[in-house]
Amino acid sequence: MDNPFFKNNGPFKIRDILKELNLYNDKDIQDQNIIDIKDLLNSKSNEITFFHSKKYKTAANITKASFCITTKSLQNELPKGCTPIIVDNVLVSTSLVTAKFYPDSINDDFDTTVEDIDTTEFNNKVQNGKNVLVGQNVSIGSNCLIGHNTIIEKNVSIGDNCIIGSNTIIRNCLIKNNVRILDNCVIGKHGFGFFPNKNKNLRYPHMGIVIIEDDCEIGCGSTIDRGSMSNTIIGQNTYLDNQIHIAHNVRIGENSIIAGQVGIAGSSIIGKNVKIGGQAGISGHLKIGNNVEIAGGSGVIKDIPDNSKVMGYPAKNIREFLRDNR
Amino acid sequence: MDNPFFKNNGPFKIRDILKELNLYNDKDIQDQNIIDIKDLLNSKSNEITFFHSKKYKTAANITKASFCITTKSLQNELPKGCTPIIVDNVLVSTSLVTAKFYPDSINDDFDTTVEDIDTTEFNNKVQNGKNVLVGQNVSIGSNCLIGHNTIIEKNVSIGDNCIIGSNTIIRNCLIKNNVRILDNCVIGKHGFGFFPNKNKNLRYPHMGIVIIEDDCEIGCGSTIDRGSMSNTIIGQNTYLDNQIHIAHNVRIGENSIIAGQVGIAGSSIIGKNVKIGGQAGISGHLKIGNNVEIAGGSGVIKDIPDNSKVMGYPAKNIREFLRDNR
Amino acid sequence: MDNPFFKNNGPFKIRDILKELNLYNDKDIQDQNIIDIKDLLNSKSNEITFFHSKKYKTAANITKASFCITTKSLQNELPKGCTPIIVDNVLVSTSLVTAKFYPDSINDDFDTTVEDIDTTEFNNKVQNGKNVLVGQNVSIGSNCLIGHNTIIEKNVSIGDNCIIGSNTIIRNCLIKNNVRILDNCVIGKHGFGFFPNKNKNLRYPHMGIVIIEDDCEIGCGSTIDRGSMSNTIIGQNTYLDNQIHIAHNVRIGENSIIAGQVGIAGSSIIGKNVKIGGQAGISGHLKIGNNVEIAGGSGVIKDIPDNSKVMGYPAKNIREFLRDNR
Repeated sequence: MDNPFFKNNGPFKIRDILKELNLYNDKDIQDQNIIDIKDLLNSKSNEITFFHSKKYKTAANITKASFCITTKSLQNELPKGCTPIIVDNVLVSTSLVTAKFYPDSINDDFDTTVEDIDTTEFNNKVQNGKNVLVGQNVSIGSNCLIGHNTIIEKNVSIGDNCIIGSNTIIRNCLIKNNVRILDNCVIGKHGFGFFPNKNKNLRYPHMGIVIIEDDCEIGCGSTIDRGSMSNTIIGQNTYLDNQIHIAHNVRIGENSIIAGQVGIAGSSIIGKNVKIGGQAGISGHLKIGNNVEIAGGSGVIKDIPDNSKVMGYPAKNIREFLRDNR
Repeated sequence: MDNPFFKNNGPFKIRDILKELNLYNDKDIQDQNIIDIKDLLNSKSNEITFFHSKKYKTAANITKASFCITTKSLQNELPKGCTPIIVDNVLVSTSLVTAKFYPDSINDDFDTTVEDIDTTEFNNKVQNGKNVLVGQNVSIGSNCLIGHNTIIEKNVSIGDNCIIGSNTIIRNCLIKNNVRILDNCVIGKHGFGFFPNKNKNLRYPHMGIVIIEDDCEIGCGSTIDRGSMSNTIIGQNTYLDNQIHIAHNVRIGENSIIAGQVGIAGSSIIGKNVKIGGQAGISGHLKIGNNVEIAGGSGVIKDIPDNSKVMGYPAKNIREFLRDNR
Repeated sequence: MDNPFFKNNGPFKIRDILKELNLYNDKDIQDQNIIDIKDLLNSKSNEITFFHSKKYKTAANITKASFCITTKSLQNELPKGCTPIIVDNVLVSTSLVTAKFYPDSINDDFDTTVEDIDTTEFNNKVQNGKNVLVGQNVSIGSNCLIGHNTIIEKNVSIGDNCIIGSNTIIRNCLIKNNVRILDNCVIGKHGFGFFPNKNKNLRYPHMGIVIIEDDCEIGCGSTIDRGSMSNTIIGQNTYLDNQIHIAHNVRIGENSIIAGQVGIAGSSIIGKNVKIGGQAGISGHLKIGNNVEIAGGSGVIKDIPDNSKVMGYPAKNIREFLRDNR
């Protein structure tokens, strides 16, 4: 995954990373510089990775990372060049290290860097409403409109011919061309991802961004969370109605149509040319194929193959559902 | 349907309308002036109408329009005085012609005409919060309150004794007396209506408005879309809870009570004295009778007769549902 | 219930209270001062209470109130020291009297007392965004952040280390320490509680507040209504995702996790360590035990005992549901 927006605060000595995890500080390695944290496949020498489930064994076998946060039982899957860092909870430890490299990815406080757009370089370039605020690391293409009271927080790139409504808040977001985002939306905040903890839950970093491809429309009052370790993506010419919630890491294909009050839980992948009726819900980590039609009010709890029409809760073949519920 | 707000940019020569549709320009008629576009029953001489489905045959037989956008197979239903304009897709062509007459009905960009209320005629008339914006063609009755950061965009008429909350956005809306609209609502934006298209969806015009009758209350975070070819109407003394979505062309009768997070899809007609429980959903183009009770969480996918109590998805008689689900 | 925020406009002579109810004004008692209105158990001498259902007979038998709004058929349950005030509709009459003592509890108009935070005592104490408004009777602890365009209306107490997002509106709310409230929320407005009435519904008072305990997080676009005769409470370290609606008088225990678009209807009590999946709905006046798991999309219409896992609509044992829906 690209991290176009989050600044890497590294490198860090491995001893400082181990200290973050309250771990033993081996003298041989303590001065080694670690440049970045990445997943098993993308990490390279002098980087740290993590390995928490047998599912990822194949990737673990060939990782090029110098260090890997993992468990006692998984450590033998790593190649010789990769030193295991044994912890109790791989994901919690990975979060702590990620937050060290990318502190901004865990912080969603309001953006204190914003300025009134009329005092910025965009003053004459953008047609804007009153009380529009713009943060740092923002770019806006030609022929764009931004409505009243809208806040373009830091780390936002907006293409050409885009129309943003009023009272909308956007951060950590890559918006392509001809995109229309209506009023009262919140786009690019962290997802509902954390490690539950009796005394105090532990938020994990959200290093992903939201990418909205060309020609999309996002309805009023919708929320789209940015990804944690990957991006949240809305495909080209996909239209979202009002009050929709798209959770972190969701990917939606092109030419899809999603009606009001739909919710899509984290990490689900939706195909192209998909139609989803109002108030339908899709559980997390599912794969919905291309050309699928999901009836309004359905609750989808398993993968749906291409070209299917489903309905019900749990959603099943629409003919079957209607026959069973005559 | 009345169009109290949208300015008719016509008349146009019929040759210019045909050109918009990339059609053959017949010499005999090309200079005729067309004043307006209306539906089959309301259109008159020197106006254009459209006819796209056999369902409307009876109305087509007696239309008084001079021209009618229709298909080859339907054209023979039109009376002699009405010249057919043959197209492949009647609704797409109708959209293009409607947009020509009423360009504002397709444009929902933020209202650039708004001014701070303190600089307007309403300064001493309305009790308003800070940062309230008011657009053109707005009227506000006596004894009204408008909360902080609220935007009354163009084409809004507000009666007497109305209370509008904070952070709310309203346009193209006729609000009668004693109406209360709470915080963070968006009312009067176009509905989720467009012609899907692989490369780029085509938005169709929304010439309707939202009408909110006397004594209504609209809860926080609700969205009510204006109609396309008819109006969206909330009947007298009807109360909506928080986070409700009312789609375009929906009509709700008087004295109805609608609990939180309900969604009503486009063009459904809800009777009077109707009670709808939280999170229930109603599909589009349905007719829900008077005195109907719909249990929370239900999904209604067919018409419901007067005085019924329904529950479930699909919603059925509540006794039957509870018996089947003991 | 404590009423830390609502000012008691009493005492009132009992004759003025009777006049409010259009009742006969008995000469012997008309000058007696009534200090407050409370429920049967908490009211004392020189206070008024109400008794509308046999369910509360035990409490009625021992009430210490001097007067009780009740019906002809229930009046004999009251002790000798308590004078019955006979009315047709106890709850409507109670509302009228409560509104007399606590007029602010029925009024949710935008707060006209707010000032720009930069002109208040909080100017140097709080790190705030632009255009932040603060009302009367507000306290804010140390190390707090408040985002752009947010309105802290009257009667709000915020503890230490709290982070409030942008475009959020809060009133009548007690926020403890380390709480995070994200963007576009509305917290502390009255619930969807009123007496339906053909000509004009009658709103009843909402004297409760919202209490958000330590370490909670409230997601974007959520609404939490304050209580009517009790408080709405979010327990310690409970996390709410985006677009959630919590109705009046709801109480949620500690360490609970509630996913996006969930709705909880009025007066339901949720235990601790409860997990609720996205879009699930919980009817009003239910008791959900500790450690309960409710699958996404479920509709809960009856009490759920401790340690249960439920799914479906109506929600039942999850194993049973999945077996029946294979």
